[in-house]
Amino acid sequence: MTLKEVANLILQHDNFEILTHHYPDGDCIGSGFALALALRQIGKKARVITTDRSKSFEYIFSKLKEQEFDTEFIIATDVANEKLLGVNQKAYEGKIDLCIDHHQSNCVNAPFKYIEADSAAAGEIIYELIPLLGAKMTRDIANCIYTAISTDTGCFRYGNTTSRTMRIAADLLDFGCDSAYINKIMFETKSKGLIRLERDLLKNMIFCADDKCAIIYTTLEMTKDLTDDETEGIASIPRQIEGVKMGITVREKADNFKISVRTNDGIDACEFCRQFGGGGHVSASGCTLKGTLDEVLQTLKDAAEKVL
Amino acid sequence: MTLKEVANLILQHDNFEILTHHYPDGDCIGSGFALALALRQIGKKARVITTDRSKSFEYIFSKLKEQEFDTEFIIATDVANEKLLGVNQKAYEGKIDLCIDHHQSNCVNAPFKYIEADSAAAGEIIYELIPLLGAKMTRDIANCIYTAISTDTGCFRYGNTTSRTMRIAADLLDFGCDSAYINKIMFETKSKGLIRLERDLLKNMIFCADDKCAIIYTTLEMTKDLTDDETEGIASIPRQIEGVKMGITVREKADNFKISVRTNDGIDACEFCRQFGGGGHVSASGCTLKGTLDEVLQTLKDAAEKVL
Repeated sequence: MTLKEVANLILQHDNFEILTHHYPDGDCIGSGFALALALRQIGKKARVITTDRSKSFEYIFSKLKEQEFDTEFIIATDVANEKLLGVNQKAYEGKIDLCIDHHQSNCVNAPFKYIEADSAAAGEIIYELIPLLGAKMTRDIANCIYTAISTDTGCFRYGNTTSRTMRIAADLLDFGCDSAYINKIMFETKSKGLIRLERDLLKNMIFCADDKCAIIYTTLEMTKDLTDDETEGIASIPRQIEGVKMGITVREKADNFKISVRTNDGIDACEFCRQFGGGGHVSASGCTLKGTLDEVLQTLKDAAEKVL
Repeated sequence: MTLKEVANLILQHDNFEILTHHYPDGDCIGSGFALALALRQIGKKARVITTDRSKSFEYIFSKLKEQEFDTEFIIATDVANEKLLGVNQKAYEGKIDLCIDHHQSNCVNAPFKYIEADSAAAGEIIYELIPLLGAKMTRDIANCIYTAISTDTGCFRYGNTTSRTMRIAADLLDFGCDSAYINKIMFETKSKGLIRLERDLLKNMIFCADDKCAIIYTTLEMTKDLTDDETEGIASIPRQIEGVKMGITVREKADNFKISVRTNDGIDACEFCRQFGGGGHVSASGCTLKGTLDEVLQTLKDAAEKVL
């Protein structure tokens, strides 16, 4: 399926729901809302379905007022797996018409799929889709796509950043996107609570596999005053340590542990997470585990020893 | 003076020394070595004078072998003030022929000056100068310029990043620059010692001016196992805290304290530092202070209370 065919398929319909994944990040929110704004611009109706509305994306949420309509066509953006729909899984499983994504591991069951694994973010695909829909780039759409691309590349820092990523970002800046504001919110703002959490994470960091693996963890107690999006960035901490090839972040949730794995030097994080039913990208993946904190840490240490 | 005139001036000479500032950062090193590599490519002789050779820039230093010649023309890149030449000040003060810089506050005494204050990095100017010299972009030069631009923009995160910055970076990626390696070294690598230091910094952080100012400090004891470039990045920590408009980092040196000031929301860091004989950019400046740690902290707190 070419992107032009994706555009033509979309243009045959009128009333859209756009799905995003749970623990929403900048890419699913930015891609979903950019597409919805573009669809409304060309006279379609569209809404974006999210699992929660975190405060840090309010500058995006506020641009799409509620609209009444009967859904006719369902698009998922940046959703690699129907399980990732979270609380929306039951309502939407098996009903996705079109899946637009950049995850190689995408296994969504949908009649139409457009997967571009060499895109740093789903937002890059949406950027190229918008003119094919006959929509124009606006400042609001540029803000959405800049959010998508900048967050999925760690602000152009990760190895997935290409010259295409950079040129799209340059175009978005020329369209007046408010990169200073978005960067400040996404990358440069930490609450005092997060500063305290980081201090505790650094104190409790665990090393294993000859110091090639570093693990940090949060308990419900440690994060009780923090929101999910406040703690989103901590997953990048353990991989940054000199000599560490695999950085693992364990977050206690109400009924399980959310695991984020970040790797260096080609160690396959996706394969690592797949053994626990998760997935993602080669150098950034995730999964969930059940058990006590000690059990989960031991499971991860054993698995890391095996790989490294 | 236009950049074409700068190129013509350079082309009239043959043997160059290129000066960089003390506590060298990616921009002065990257700009200086990019220019030297380009000059050698077109048959000139050139060396770069630095105050020290920090390990993290070894991938740049190693590309320029020593060359014997009598210096004929002296260029300073990214040097805003002759005081910033550090241990090289005595030898070079008043002898700079051409100054290429992006600091608005540049006050170097030189017959020829090319200052472009809207460039995010001196490296952007060098990028545009290279073809005017008749030199070709190479992978080594691209690595130097990428280092210059990425470090001075916090990897395209700071407000000085423009669409030109992004397009130059895109071109550098197309020239094969090793952005993944450079980003890893410059932004994603922390020694265990630095992790310990960060934990201590977060523990000892001082708030003043109704929490609009946050101050962190290092003592000689705290940094005795760390190099200057390892601790370079800590200056960005205090400004990141929610509500903080001025983040100050105090580093004890052998005979004084090095102060880094980072600001948000248009608070003028350059003006703040100028009262102590320093300077820089509106949102990132520096100065040095003498006294005991307590005296220095009190001076900074008083000054911050006045501004905020």
